[in-house]
Amino acid sequence: MIFYDCSTAPNPRRARMFIAEKGLKIETRDISIANGEQASEAFRAINPRATLPVLVTDDGQTLTENLGIAAYLEALHPEPPLMGRTPAEKGQVLMWHAIAEAEGGMPIAEALRNSHPAFANRAIPGPENYAQLPNLAERGHARAGKFFELLEVRLKQSEFVALDYLTLADIAAFVFVDFARVIKKRIPEGNSATRAWYDTISERPSARI
Amino acid sequence: MIFYDCSTAPNPRRARMFIAEKGLKIETRDISIANGEQASEAFRAINPRATLPVLVTDDGQTLTENLGIAAYLEALHPEPPLMGRTPAEKGQVLMWHAIAEAEGGMPIAEALRNSHPAFANRAIPGPENYAQLPNLAERGHARAGKFFELLEVRLKQSEFVALDYLTLADIAAFVFVDFARVIKKRIPEGNSATRAWYDTISERPSARI
Repeated sequence: MIFYDCSTAPNPRRARMFIAEKGLKIETRDISIANGEQASEAFRAINPRATLPVLVTDDGQTLTENLGIAAYLEALHPEPPLMGRTPAEKGQVLMWHAIAEAEGGMPIAEALRNSHPAFANRAIPGPENYAQLPNLAERGHARAGKFFELLEVRLKQSEFVALDYLTLADIAAFVFVDFARVIKKRIPEGNSATRAWYDTISERPSARI
Repeated sequence: MIFYDCSTAPNPRRARMFIAEKGLKIETRDISIANGEQASEAFRAINPRATLPVLVTDDGQTLTENLGIAAYLEALHPEPPLMGRTPAEKGQVLMWHAIAEAEGGMPIAEALRNSHPAFANRAIPGPENYAQLPNLAERGHARAGKFFELLEVRLKQSEFVALDYLTLADIAAFVFVDFARVIKKRIPEGNSATRAWYDTISERPSARI
């Protein structure tokens, strides 16, 4: 099995944390997005969509997208469970994961990719080039602020985002909260439930790799 | 169990098709988005995020987001499998589902919601109001065209989107292809693999409800 990672990007980090929380050791190759390596012919032979993360399984299947990689590893290595044990838990995990992606990951990415010079003409990851839309960056900033509000409401009710233990949904939300620094958003003062949750996860070895 | 549906909207249709493919009969209530019923106090007591679809389980849990509902029902009623049987199949289904959402569902929704007068100030579903961004509508149109290309390439290799049988990923992609009519995009002439796949699914009872 080979895991194609990128040490500087949030989406590969989510897969990397998931693998670490499973206690798995997988051969890893770092692809430098800063150097455009994901767009190279060599990498596009592995993933034509030129995105990271990618997991190539022992029987040669190529899995992309965080959910593709997580579903595969969860089924192959059920312990510890990161996507729920019961039907209701499984539903809650994928529900909160979808909310974190739509309300957190997406607006933060929109704010960054539509404003930072490093993403000129690269507003969307993948093989196509798209111009930056400054008003979308602005909207992303506003929505990222709402994400912090939503997270605080939820974490006042629940120790972790989806369940009473750490799951895939926490990994996504934690990586997005951390990555929000690139658009100069941080956990607002007074959001004490989010701060406690963030600090707890920060101390896990999976958060430090 | 109660399923909150909306007969005119694509995302509830995905859940409705999933339920039908499982052969389940679930008490269903139609919420009229056209009449703004999803924003009513009564509905927001059920789902504060004011989105559809919603499934309220027999033990009173509220599941939103297509993936939340699908993961719950798949675990509770594994047959017929719509999210894969083996680890590799499960990975492929969620991978293709994520690709269909990012490359199909999202751009089509962006094109519609950022241009149609019915969505003025409602560019994003949910409790917050966001102004329409005309340039995002334009980009959505361009990206929806690319989605049809991607789908044709995939369906030349594979009878269904993720596996060799119908899964959650087909349901999503089928509903997006159908819904693209609202932005005047249809399966391009000559995309014969997509046309054959679309026609096959159209004939299923789940596509006609």
